[in-house]
Amino acid sequence: MIAQSATIVTLTTLMASSQGIGFNKYVSSGNEADLHMEDFLEYYADDPETKVVAAYIEGVRKGRRFIDASREVTKNKPFVVLKGGKTEAGAAAASSHTGALSGADMIFDAMCVQTGIMRVSDHLEMIDLIKAFLLLPRPMGKKVGIVSAQGGMGVLMADACVKYGLEIPKLTEGSINELNTFLPYFWSHRNPIDVTAGFMGDLSALTKSLEVLLRQEDIHSVVCLPQVWSPLFSTISAQISDEMQDLFKSISVEMMEWMEETIINDFIKLKNKYGKPVIAIGTFTQSGSKSNRLLEENGIPVYETPDQVARVMSKMVEYAEYLRGKDI
Amino acid sequence: MIAQSATIVTLTTLMASSQGIGFNKYVSSGNEADLHMEDFLEYYADDPETKVVAAYIEGVRKGRRFIDASREVTKNKPFVVLKGGKTEAGAAAASSHTGALSGADMIFDAMCVQTGIMRVSDHLEMIDLIKAFLLLPRPMGKKVGIVSAQGGMGVLMADACVKYGLEIPKLTEGSINELNTFLPYFWSHRNPIDVTAGFMGDLSALTKSLEVLLRQEDIHSVVCLPQVWSPLFSTISAQISDEMQDLFKSISVEMMEWMEETIINDFIKLKNKYGKPVIAIGTFTQSGSKSNRLLEENGIPVYETPDQVARVMSKMVEYAEYLRGKDI
Repeated sequence: MIAQSATIVTLTTLMASSQGIGFNKYVSSGNEADLHMEDFLEYYADDPETKVVAAYIEGVRKGRRFIDASREVTKNKPFVVLKGGKTEAGAAAASSHTGALSGADMIFDAMCVQTGIMRVSDHLEMIDLIKAFLLLPRPMGKKVGIVSAQGGMGVLMADACVKYGLEIPKLTEGSINELNTFLPYFWSHRNPIDVTAGFMGDLSALTKSLEVLLRQEDIHSVVCLPQVWSPLFSTISAQISDEMQDLFKSISVEMMEWMEETIINDFIKLKNKYGKPVIAIGTFTQSGSKSNRLLEENGIPVYETPDQVARVMSKMVEYAEYLRGKDI
Repeated sequence: MIAQSATIVTLTTLMASSQGIGFNKYVSSGNEADLHMEDFLEYYADDPETKVVAAYIEGVRKGRRFIDASREVTKNKPFVVLKGGKTEAGAAAASSHTGALSGADMIFDAMCVQTGIMRVSDHLEMIDLIKAFLLLPRPMGKKVGIVSAQGGMGVLMADACVKYGLEIPKLTEGSINELNTFLPYFWSHRNPIDVTAGFMGDLSALTKSLEVLLRQEDIHSVVCLPQVWSPLFSTISAQISDEMQDLFKSISVEMMEWMEETIINDFIKLKNKYGKPVIAIGTFTQSGSKSNRLLEENGIPVYETPDQVARVMSKMVEYAEYLRGKDI
C-alpha cells in the first residue's frame, strides 16, 4: 500500500491485520518532495510478494507516468484506490494537506476505467475489497445466485446486487425440479433461494441448495447467508442472567457451533469442487469467531451486510471484465 | 422497532444493544396475517417510552393508512425505514418471503419525502442513525465545520459531506485571525481545519479550534476527528512482542488515554456551551473503549468512517427541514 497520508495507511493496515489480512510493504509518501506515487507503483507492479496494490491518492503529478505505471500494475494484480479530494471542498482541503492538485474528478474516473483501477469510498471498503481479491477466484460474469434461510436478508441481498450492477438470473427448470425434491413445499421457488426455517429439520438442505446454484451454468458466483450465527449467540449469552448463561452456552452456543462447522465444511468442499466464488454473510463478524476463521482460511470471505458483498462483487466483475477486454 | 423479518429485527436490536443503544419494544410482524405495520406505527406514535421509531418494510398493504400513521410518528419522533424489495429482483424475493407487494420504489420514495420518513440502506446504517437521533440536538442547517489533526481524514470528510448534500462553509476572517493566534503557521487556513501534527505540542489547539468553529454563526454542526486513538494503540499493543508490551502499554497506551480524556472532557464542555451537534470519528470503535463511552454518554456519537458521519448528518438535516416545513 502507498498513501499520501500517514493516518490512512496506518489505519488501513492495522485494521486489515486485525482481520487477518497482511500487508508485506507499505509506504506513507506524504507530500512527495522526492519519490512520487508513480515510483512506488512501478516497484509494486514487479514485486512478487505483493498480490494486491492499494493506494490513497490526493493528487497525481505526472498523469502520463501514472497511467503507464497503473497499467503495469493491473496487468498482473488488482489495484484499489481511495481518492481524496473528489469534490471541490475536498480538493481545497487536499491542497493545504499535501499540496497536491486534485484535478477534475471526472478525469480521474476516466483514467480509472482505462487503467483497470478500482475506486473505493473509504478505508473499510478498501479492506473488504483486498480480502475478496486475496481469497476469491476471478468471477466469470456478473450473475449471482443467493441462498439463505432468512427471507429478509435474501431480499436485501437481491436489492444490493441490482444496485451495484450485478444480475440475479432465473433458476432453470432443472434447478427448480431438483430443489423441489428436498426443500419444504413453501420454499421461494426462485433465486434468491429461501430454504426457509424448514432447514432446521434438515441441515443438508442449505448445502444441497448451494450445489444446485453452483451447478447452474449461468450463475457465476454464489452468496450464502445463514451459517455464521455463533458470534450472535455469544453476544446474547453475555447479556442474559448468570444462572441461565451456563445452560444457554452448553445447549445453544455449542449446538450452534457444531451445526455451523458441519455446514461450513460441506460449503468448503463444494467451493473447491466448482471453483466459483462463494461469499458468506455473517453477523457480528467484527468480534471474530471460529466459524469466520474456518471460512476465510478456506477461501470463503465473510462480510456483515449485503451492501458490502455486492460492492465487492461488482468491483471483482469490473476487474475481470477489464482483463478480458485486454485479452489477458 | 417493527420488522417484516425476524432476522432483521433480531440483528438490529442485538447489534444496537452491543453499542449501548436500547430498544424498549420490538415487533416481528412477519407476513401480517392479523395486525399490520400500520397498527404498530399508530401505537409507537403515542408511546412516550419510544424516542425513535425504526422499521424494516417489504410491502405496505394500505397506503393511505400507512401515510397517516407515518405522519403521526414523524410529528413527534424520527422514523427510520429500511425498505426491502427496492429493485425488481428484490421485490420478487419479497413476494415469496412475506407475500407483500413491494410496489414501485419511486412511489415509496415520494411517500417518504411527504411523510418525513428517512430511508437507510442496511441495518448498520439504521443503528448509526438511531444513535445520532438519540444523542444529538437538532441541527439548524446543513453547514458543517471540520477539525482534525490528520489532513487525509479531513479531506475525505469534506468529500463525504458534499457527496451527501451538506456544505462546508468558508471560515470568516475573524475565525481565521483567531486560529492564527495559536495554531502553527502551516495550518490549513480553511475549513476543514487541519491543526497538523503540530498540536502534539499544545493539546488545547484542538479544543480551541473546535470552539472557533462552534462560535461561527453559519456553522451548524462540527465533526472532530482526532481524539479516539487508544483502541488503536491497544490493537498495536496486542501485536507486538511480550517484552515490549508492558513498556508500550505503560508509556503509549496510558499516555494516550490520559491525553484523550483531557481533550474529551473539554469537548464535552464546549458541546454543552454551544448546543450544536458535535460528532467524533474514532478508529476501531467496534472494539469499544473508555474514550468512546465517555463521548457517547455525554452526547457526542462516535463513528468509524467519514461516510457514516456524512450520511447520518444529512438525514438529520433532512428531518429538521421536514419539521421546519411543517412549522412544528
